[in-house]
Amino acid sequence: MGMRTVIVGSGSVLPPRVVANAAFLQHEFLDADGSPIPKANADILAQFEAITGIQERRYAAEDQVCSDLALLAARDALASSNLDPESLDGLIVAQNFGDVRLGSTQCDLVPSLAARVKAGLGLRNPDCAAFDLIFGCPGWVQGVIQADAMVRSGQARRLMVIGADTLSRVSDPHDRDSLIYADGAGAVILESRETTDGILASASRSHAVEGSCLLTTGPSFKKDAFPGERFIKMEGRKLYRFAVQQVPIALKAALDKAGVKLAEVSKILIHQANLKMDEAIVDGLYALEGLKAPEGVMPMTIATLGNSSVATVPTLLDLITKGQLDGHTIQPGDLVLFASVGAGMHINAVVYRVPKGE
Amino acid sequence: MGMRTVIVGSGSVLPPRVVANAAFLQHEFLDADGSPIPKANADILAQFEAITGIQERRYAAEDQVCSDLALLAARDALASSNLDPESLDGLIVAQNFGDVRLGSTQCDLVPSLAARVKAGLGLRNPDCAAFDLIFGCPGWVQGVIQADAMVRSGQARRLMVIGADTLSRVSDPHDRDSLIYADGAGAVILESRETTDGILASASRSHAVEGSCLLTTGPSFKKDAFPGERFIKMEGRKLYRFAVQQVPIALKAALDKAGVKLAEVSKILIHQANLKMDEAIVDGLYALEGLKAPEGVMPMTIATLGNSSVATVPTLLDLITKGQLDGHTIQPGDLVLFASVGAGMHINAVVYRVPKGE
Repeated sequence: MGMRTVIVGSGSVLPPRVVANAAFLQHEFLDADGSPIPKANADILAQFEAITGIQERRYAAEDQVCSDLALLAARDALASSNLDPESLDGLIVAQNFGDVRLGSTQCDLVPSLAARVKAGLGLRNPDCAAFDLIFGCPGWVQGVIQADAMVRSGQARRLMVIGADTLSRVSDPHDRDSLIYADGAGAVILESRETTDGILASASRSHAVEGSCLLTTGPSFKKDAFPGERFIKMEGRKLYRFAVQQVPIALKAALDKAGVKLAEVSKILIHQANLKMDEAIVDGLYALEGLKAPEGVMPMTIATLGNSSVATVPTLLDLITKGQLDGHTIQPGDLVLFASVGAGMHINAVVYRVPKGE
Repeated sequence: MGMRTVIVGSGSVLPPRVVANAAFLQHEFLDADGSPIPKANADILAQFEAITGIQERRYAAEDQVCSDLALLAARDALASSNLDPESLDGLIVAQNFGDVRLGSTQCDLVPSLAARVKAGLGLRNPDCAAFDLIFGCPGWVQGVIQADAMVRSGQARRLMVIGADTLSRVSDPHDRDSLIYADGAGAVILESRETTDGILASASRSHAVEGSCLLTTGPSFKKDAFPGERFIKMEGRKLYRFAVQQVPIALKAALDKAGVKLAEVSKILIHQANLKMDEAIVDGLYALEGLKAPEGVMPMTIATLGNSSVATVPTLLDLITKGQLDGHTIQPGDLVLFASVGAGMHINAVVYRVPKGE
């Protein structure tokens, strides 16, 4: 036995605006050089759906910003866990664009979104430090890894880690990749406990030399349409190849550190980036051991929620925990692998054993 | 003896553009309501200098962004410490506005500035995870606190923690408070060592309910001059009162946690926010013990470097370490208190004993 970090609550918010692929039928999609894409939008959308698995996505309401979504997820986590909010002694918000008001692409991080959430919750315990963490889409998993370090080193006993982003606010309407992006927020409460379960190990990797140019910001594909403004830009094919090659290695490293076997893993909660890519990553992981990925090991929400960056993994966990994801459950004793990859390029994973006493 | 986190290298960069107060003589300074300030600029500047102690400040070159400054500080830390760059297994960049290109106020954080620095250094060790931390001006001290948690929990053995910001890019030219802001970057390398010295304790506090509105972003005081753009905005007087009241309490808490007496402290490296405020904070800390602040305990760089946010504390440490701050030295065995306060409002402190073996 020793002090371990365990999950004691979760929450999420599904932003109110449901945007189906058909909403993009009239968009003017351009190539990176500004030339029209020589394909009907209906064909672009059909191909998009076949690869990414995305049928619709959620956007924040017009008057919401990222910290509003984060606050809703935080309230949900506190309400459904029935814990004293003032008992939190740490609050981490993983995000990548701060608060971006509708009609602007300016990112606002001052004060930290964590401070805004803390103020919104009305939390007065000064010892609950509230900071933001920027690590691309893997930011929420990284927040959990940081929380684990804080718990194990004695810096904190109970923390909330939120992942929230509003990618719809920084999407170039003339870029097909914008179809992928969604808004969302999810939150988890973690605490220190005397157990051999909980977080067994983690791995965190950054491939910056070759990867920092794969997911960046840049001007709209429609020249002069948005002077001086920058949007998310992705080297989709290179990113796909990178992820399929590198992520299985990182996940294997985390499992090895934990001293557990891949065959013991019940669920892989992977960042909802792209259906085919996620399948290729998980297949690649099992292939490292000469295995086939078992049916149902990788629950997916991407079809209806899209890729909401740091929000996908905690949202997935919360939906499963609350019995809201068809057929998927997580049981005491289960071994769960949290995994993510994104801008950086960063990759990380947490190996988690659900405590048997719960 | 036990595993402790010790500082093994430091670096900084003084941005190239030296901007004296006189450079603001022709500025049109307005009140928050947009009305002209009924005072000559020369008087505004004289009063400003008397309170803040700032005579000049440094700005990044026109073609530099925040991550460029961070990279220069990182290179300096590596060069002057003579450590193998590939031995780093963590890289944290504390910042608050990302990269802001000249002529824009859009903050760009994708990928994380830490990923950009890692790419700039050419570091290929994938196990060196590179993330950013957002915590207002205390972000760099918070990065050190996170690094300490990572070292103590066994997640990392040698990390670089950089503080970098370019406040000049998000300053409202019509707001007197803009005179305070500067650009800069500083870096420290920390590692795990078997010792009773190094980081003895830390404290980190967030006063969000009452403090989150004191340092934010908002429109220019000159209506319609910069449509849709947001700049740093400060409730200067409230912030001053808050800091003078709360920071001594937080610093005392850190010293108590470390089990050391204030009288043992050799140097307080405090965030260079404002000369009078910093003096009032340090006087307030000593007053808690019925003491007077000893001469020379609080080295200052604000007169020539201004308030460069997260960069002030590591820059101060680097200048002292390299014998570049008149009369100030840090010796083996010295007890050093790192302290900061800023947007959030967040306050933190690290109690550090310089290892005697060095």
